[in-house]
Amino acid sequence: MNTGDDVTLAGLRVCPDLDSILYALAGVNDAERGWGRADEAERAAEEMTAWGVGWPWFTLGDRDLGACITRSHWLAEGVGLAEVVRRLASRWDLGVALLPMSEQPIETHVHTAEQGRMHFQEWWVRHRAGLRAERFELDGIGAATPAPGVLAAIADADAVLVAPSNPVVSIGPILAVPGIREALVATAAPVVGLSPIVGGRVVRGMADACLEAIGVDTDAAAVAQHYGAELLDGWLVDTADAGAAGRLTAEGIPTIARPLLFTSVEETAAIARDALALAQR
Amino acid sequence: MNTGDDVTLAGLRVCPDLDSILYALAGVNDAERGWGRADEAERAAEEMTAWGVGWPWFTLGDRDLGACITRSHWLAEGVGLAEVVRRLASRWDLGVALLPMSEQPIETHVHTAEQGRMHFQEWWVRHRAGLRAERFELDGIGAATPAPGVLAAIADADAVLVAPSNPVVSIGPILAVPGIREALVATAAPVVGLSPIVGGRVVRGMADACLEAIGVDTDAAAVAQHYGAELLDGWLVDTADAGAAGRLTAEGIPTIARPLLFTSVEETAAIARDALALAQR
Repeated sequence: MNTGDDVTLAGLRVCPDLDSILYALAGVNDAERGWGRADEAERAAEEMTAWGVGWPWFTLGDRDLGACITRSHWLAEGVGLAEVVRRLASRWDLGVALLPMSEQPIETHVHTAEQGRMHFQEWWVRHRAGLRAERFELDGIGAATPAPGVLAAIADADAVLVAPSNPVVSIGPILAVPGIREALVATAAPVVGLSPIVGGRVVRGMADACLEAIGVDTDAAAVAQHYGAELLDGWLVDTADAGAAGRLTAEGIPTIARPLLFTSVEETAAIARDALALAQR
Repeated sequence: MNTGDDVTLAGLRVCPDLDSILYALAGVNDAERGWGRADEAERAAEEMTAWGVGWPWFTLGDRDLGACITRSHWLAEGVGLAEVVRRLASRWDLGVALLPMSEQPIETHVHTAEQGRMHFQEWWVRHRAGLRAERFELDGIGAATPAPGVLAAIADADAVLVAPSNPVVSIGPILAVPGIREALVATAAPVVGLSPIVGGRVVRGMADACLEAIGVDTDAAAVAQHYGAELLDGWLVDTADAGAAGRLTAEGIPTIARPLLFTSVEETAAIARDALALAQR
């Protein structure tokens, strides 16, 4: 899991991607709002804002803060992030192991044309990616190592699926941890990705603003080429992008087209099944 | 203000006495429950408890946690506790300056007959002072100094009122900070105390269990004698204890009796006026 959008706020370690995945798998997420916990309120954040502490545009719900306090406490005790995630997840029967990409703090910063350098969350949440991103910097990435268990999970996998997440700020940081991309290239497991771009548009979020900053077209084929034939053993695009399938396959990335827009767990599972089927080919 | 019942919980610095006084003066306290903020919920604490972090019998409300996060953040930045209190209080127009007794962490521990040594809060909140206290220890008191402004406030005061708070674990720690008792003895300002004991019973809380541990009777005169004629220039007892007034006055503690049981702000103000009048004599 990506930790590149983590941030320390009012002394608390906030891990938006980790927690979003955990909450969703546990079924306690706020599906309507798209982030945080269900049955939420913001009493603590209201107080912090009144005292000018934290980011008023990045309010965390009270349940969410309970997780941040717990995590920060364990980290301060010297517990590694992988073990922290394991403990947080152990409350629920998830059926999967969640691994952070690294235990070292890595924080994405954005250089904007209008206001210079800022934390990714400031650009993303406060400015809704509305300032022009010139480039991204992953502070701490050079000294980072994969978290315990990550390389073994890649080496021992039957298949690796690359989720249709933001290729630049979600998948990008994971691949940038020294050793992880190399492990994905080296593993015997097939690596199959799902396009986050459908018909030249991002399905969700503001990935186009990120892709533009790194000079990659907002296009299903361009994202596959960005990951590279060396990494990918397969690629799923939407039927709207079926035209790219033949070309990518010829370039060494076997590609199939099928509907990728999903709203239900059943549809998502069907897509995952097709991705695994492509991996077995 | 007493900081002797402070505790660090899940990495957050909790200051129950400081916050109770702040909330009450700001009018945002939960008067019915007797502690914490009004309009409260415990979403964050529920999460922490589910992860086994913190004390399940010492749940903090979400608004309360907002204050604890804010304080802990400022303390971690190197801000002194006196300045932290000033900032927390600056949100409201209190009309008074609040000063912690010391900026050094001081934590009261209780030696119990049944279960040995424990933090004061565990004895007080978890066991409702039901274990027999053999003695109290103020960890950190030896190295503590009065917080900035405390000695000047005592020296420059027109009068000093000693509140009818717990003589052992609320007033006691303040007097135990090296230099504070000496300053109260030395100041030109009259020092007048109010008895927390009415008719041989504690008005509120479980001060009797604390007094017993230090060998002081639960008695209005005994508490005055415990503070001592050197410290006190006056003492207010309830009419139920009028019999002690002559004796204490003869011992060098001018004492008056008047009703001390109050439920309204007006009654409290009238008592304070009588205390100040005694100070002026």
